[in-house]
Amino acid sequence: MRLRDLGEWELLRSLAAYAPAGQFNDDAALLEERSGQQLVVNTDVLVEGVHFSDATIGPRDLGWRAAAANLSDLAAMGCTSVAGITVALVAPGDTPWSWVEGVYAGLRDALEPHGAVILGGDCSSGSERLLSITALGRVTHGTAIRRGDGRPGDWLVSSGPHGLSRLGLALLLNELEASQVSPALRKRAIEAHRRPKPRLDVAQALHSCRPSGQAWRVGGTDSSDGLAAAVGAIATTSGCGALLEHSQLPIDPELALLESGERWCLGGGEDFELVLALPPSWAEALLKALPGASCIGRLVEAEPGLVCWQESGEPLAATESGFTHFR
Amino acid sequence: MRLRDLGEWELLRSLAAYAPAGQFNDDAALLEERSGQQLVVNTDVLVEGVHFSDATIGPRDLGWRAAAANLSDLAAMGCTSVAGITVALVAPGDTPWSWVEGVYAGLRDALEPHGAVILGGDCSSGSERLLSITALGRVTHGTAIRRGDGRPGDWLVSSGPHGLSRLGLALLLNELEASQVSPALRKRAIEAHRRPKPRLDVAQALHSCRPSGQAWRVGGTDSSDGLAAAVGAIATTSGCGALLEHSQLPIDPELALLESGERWCLGGGEDFELVLALPPSWAEALLKALPGASCIGRLVEAEPGLVCWQESGEPLAATESGFTHFR
Repeated sequence: MRLRDLGEWELLRSLAAYAPAGQFNDDAALLEERSGQQLVVNTDVLVEGVHFSDATIGPRDLGWRAAAANLSDLAAMGCTSVAGITVALVAPGDTPWSWVEGVYAGLRDALEPHGAVILGGDCSSGSERLLSITALGRVTHGTAIRRGDGRPGDWLVSSGPHGLSRLGLALLLNELEASQVSPALRKRAIEAHRRPKPRLDVAQALHSCRPSGQAWRVGGTDSSDGLAAAVGAIATTSGCGALLEHSQLPIDPELALLESGERWCLGGGEDFELVLALPPSWAEALLKALPGASCIGRLVEAEPGLVCWQESGEPLAATESGFTHFR
Repeated sequence: MRLRDLGEWELLRSLAAYAPAGQFNDDAALLEERSGQQLVVNTDVLVEGVHFSDATIGPRDLGWRAAAANLSDLAAMGCTSVAGITVALVAPGDTPWSWVEGVYAGLRDALEPHGAVILGGDCSSGSERLLSITALGRVTHGTAIRRGDGRPGDWLVSSGPHGLSRLGLALLLNELEASQVSPALRKRAIEAHRRPKPRLDVAQALHSCRPSGQAWRVGGTDSSDGLAAAVGAIATTSGCGALLEHSQLPIDPELALLESGERWCLGGGEDFELVLALPPSWAEALLKALPGASCIGRLVEAEPGLVCWQESGEPLAATESGFTHFR
């Protein structure tokens, strides 16, 4: 069964099975507003051949990743709940229905643990496969995480390890021989690439461990474009510099032994962890409340956006700096 | 200047000029929630070669149309205000920057009259040009317009004339000779095709003219897929049939004289008017409150979705029934 055999109406009817009953009945989706909250809205587009390839990811993992990438942006804004997503799907008429079914099942898999649903969307034929997803989440008024809310003296905290997703991709593309990593790391890396987990638990931890009397002020972003890019974005938007402790890089010890390990940790991207800048006492409390989190450096008064190694004082070399479109 | 010369970051920086200052600084957009309101969310995707062509529409009109199509869905849900849109833009690297600039200027043109803004979005390279837009609006709690809220006995009201947009397209594609229509109609038709106006004024009129004691119950949808499809969708979702008065078709008298006129009125699509089903007394009040609106028929107890001519009792012929993707 191909999409051109289904036709548009039958396709939409089939996709409605992945959303709450009646959700696709109207011109748009309705969402109850809640007082004391702010709505957070994020849109991401994934294009075949640019962001994903049939060679390294099946439809169900693709759906998961697409939803997870969007939820990660909500997590990076401090959301503690997710309402749902809208999905625009573009695909050629010869696309198998089973592929679309897999993608929607993967979207649902990624949403379900967060009580979120597919709110609606649109479909069209087109020359290449593509997903454009808009996610809607909520943050308690005044407790958003903003890139520009870091201050000199803040500690930089990473919610987890970096470079695993890029290692997983390398293994799937046979850039590395399987024998170069242990079976346990191989499994973790491929899981990190195929089924990344959006860190919606981090904002919860920030709320629960906030020192009494400490006003809400958390700088941060997610590390979808890489750890170095995340630190650079916080420093730039906050108008300060950053020092990274080389000895504290959040990297798996086995990965660190690989030639590309450090480069992938800094610039591999798509780890979907959060990188935060916050006052030292709050950072210390967060490290206790959030297993796997670590302090990786601090913000300093310096040229905005300048990121240096604490040990040597040297600026970070131009590492693999994340993907740039259109070039 | 081509997109590949700009690169992704410079492109996003340039696009930020079309949004409020700082709007693109974070991972996602923040929106204040309001008590007593419901949020309305809609996503539409427009693909070059499927939904638009450089031959018939320039970038600025395309941006306008893309935003207007989305705002029309919000209008069809009863929104009285629009917060804004997110935009996912996909285009090949050789796309001229001037084209992108034109599209965003057109988006802004269409949003400004409604106090709405570009909230955020994403960009990617890809093999064809494409816009995926998500619009966010608000409706006062309990006053949404739903497709399934029509009841037998309701009058069907069209907010304005139909077929003009399709006539405009025909003129732009030289399907018709210019001499077949008057200069005045030509101008109106091309304007209807290039700069359709989302009918966000209709919900306002519904509120202001609601008879005292009348509970809120309005069935409806917009006519983006054509007048007949809109009536069919209301009837189907409301579980009843519909009678259309042939003598009351909302068609320009000059257009009615053209061979394709009636077909374009019923199935041309993209007129972006609203089609409503509501109790007769409220419908009468609405016709007085909304110049250009007319009663075109009524809902009846019949096979759900069956649309017949009131005069002859015959079902509508399978006219040009709107575009179907994937076939």
